[in-house]
Amino acid sequence: MRLEKIKTQGLAHLSYFLSADGEAAVIDPRRDIDIYLDLAREEGSVIKHVFETHRNEDLLSGAPVLKEETGAKVWHGPNPEKPIQYAAETREGDTFEIGGALLKVLETPGHTDDSLSYVLYDKSFEEGPVGVFTGDALFIGDVGRTDFYPDRKREVAGLLYDSLEKLLGLGDQCLVYPAHGAGSVCGSGMADREFSSIGHEKLNNPSLQIDDREAFIDAKVAENHYIPPYFRRMEEGNMEGTEAAPPAPLPASPARLLDPGDAVCLDVRGIFDFAGGHRTGSLCIPDDMLAAFAGWLLPGDKPVLLVARDDDQAVDAA
Amino acid sequence: MRLEKIKTQGLAHLSYFLSADGEAAVIDPRRDIDIYLDLAREEGSVIKHVFETHRNEDLLSGAPVLKEETGAKVWHGPNPEKPIQYAAETREGDTFEIGGALLKVLETPGHTDDSLSYVLYDKSFEEGPVGVFTGDALFIGDVGRTDFYPDRKREVAGLLYDSLEKLLGLGDQCLVYPAHGAGSVCGSGMADREFSSIGHEKLNNPSLQIDDREAFIDAKVAENHYIPPYFRRMEEGNMEGTEAAPPAPLPASPARLLDPGDAVCLDVRGIFDFAGGHRTGSLCIPDDMLAAFAGWLLPGDKPVLLVARDDDQAVDAA
Repeated sequence: MRLEKIKTQGLAHLSYFLSADGEAAVIDPRRDIDIYLDLAREEGSVIKHVFETHRNEDLLSGAPVLKEETGAKVWHGPNPEKPIQYAAETREGDTFEIGGALLKVLETPGHTDDSLSYVLYDKSFEEGPVGVFTGDALFIGDVGRTDFYPDRKREVAGLLYDSLEKLLGLGDQCLVYPAHGAGSVCGSGMADREFSSIGHEKLNNPSLQIDDREAFIDAKVAENHYIPPYFRRMEEGNMEGTEAAPPAPLPASPARLLDPGDAVCLDVRGIFDFAGGHRTGSLCIPDDMLAAFAGWLLPGDKPVLLVARDDDQAVDAA
Repeated sequence: MRLEKIKTQGLAHLSYFLSADGEAAVIDPRRDIDIYLDLAREEGSVIKHVFETHRNEDLLSGAPVLKEETGAKVWHGPNPEKPIQYAAETREGDTFEIGGALLKVLETPGHTDDSLSYVLYDKSFEEGPVGVFTGDALFIGDVGRTDFYPDRKREVAGLLYDSLEKLLGLGDQCLVYPAHGAGSVCGSGMADREFSSIGHEKLNNPSLQIDDREAFIDAKVAENHYIPPYFRRMEEGNMEGTEAAPPAPLPASPARLLDPGDAVCLDVRGIFDFAGGHRTGSLCIPDDMLAAFAGWLLPGDKPVLLVARDDDQAVDAA
């Protein structure tokens, strides 16, 4: 059984490739799916299932593209805001076999109404789960934000409390695999570490030190989080399904810089290059800050004219 | 804090690169150390310490080479068979800081007299250890072999029992990072999975289900293990220290095949290539079986003339 964590820098998004005995599953895939296909090829395994822990709001899911490319089934929790058009519904207690691995569905609403966790068993060592994919319900050092339903703040914070109780019940031995690491806008106090267990979280995670349900709800309701402007666009995309990322951009003629039409001119070369000279009116987001800030600062409905140092930087930034 | 597992295929040897806040440590490095240097470069961190869990007998340690290249200190446990010439001694209770990570030494003899475990704490979430590097004391699904001291079989099996008790005392939440995964000659019942916790092992590891010390000793003494012929050579090398792996081989003229001198002619192209035609008297070990079998089948004291399909295969095999 092999489990690979795939980290998308900038967003601090974590997805997982699980493979056992020639079969594979992907949990919370990102839109750039080549890495999962490469892993499957390397393992000689077939991607049978794609599991979504919830409707992500900070990134576009790669699930519809993976389904298209591999024929895998995509699974999503009940109670989404709108139907998830590319996924089938799975509920508490459903089980899925991936070779010698077994995944069992746990409903863990609170961060979103449709939040699921997937509990991982090793069929050869089946006493207690070996791990759990917690999505945005439980992070390492933090728990999910509960501010996405402004009219139901106390209710959803209470739902998260109950979900966390369920997760703690999996046992101290159980490893924790969340959908985000430190640096994500989906939590504020995450540990700068991507390995933990239910037991270690029970001892150390500040939110899990609050025993009383009402006190937990009070603490969650008092939190302040930003909602980045692109969250709504991501949510829409993740209900309807998205297409694969567009191919790498072609170099434009310099004339395009003089007359960019209605495109936004985005300069990713870096602060010093930008300071040294740039097109009037262009926006500077250095390439290593792009994943975190492009969604905040770029309008979603205009073409982008990309200014980069060289071909490689342009392709990476695109 | 970042923790990378580096797997050496064939030997199923696991080493670890731990990095936090610009400082790094390597646990049980293999001889080909480039991967640790690359990780340190990528993280912008300085390798301060190299920790050995025990004197390995199935591979050559990269510790002396890493020391030479980086100036890191190498640490080894007490009671080695002969002095470890490139390492300083560390004992139970010693602690080492690597940025925000803390490693604490635990003496866990049994597999060898000098076996140590290194317990990992996150200084920001310090309630209970988050992981432990167990060397060959505790594997995932198995425990270490105790047959290396034929005259002291019962004694060393008892030492291992006591060491395992210490490890179990770290708490169910503690993640387990052993020096080997499935496929190693250092254990026979390992799980085909490289992630677990003390709690999961306590529930599932067959050797940990034996509560009684004498019954455990009886079970260990009754085991049968092979001792591959190259173990002694590795042990010697690991006490005296080794040099870096030799550079990639130069192509030899075809005349060398006709008169290989006293060299052993090793053909790594693969079964079908070998069957299609090969030099009389040459030895066939396909490249993907090389790590497991070269040590068994090649004499240690003769030059090797390598026959490969192309440059890449020759370099990999070398």
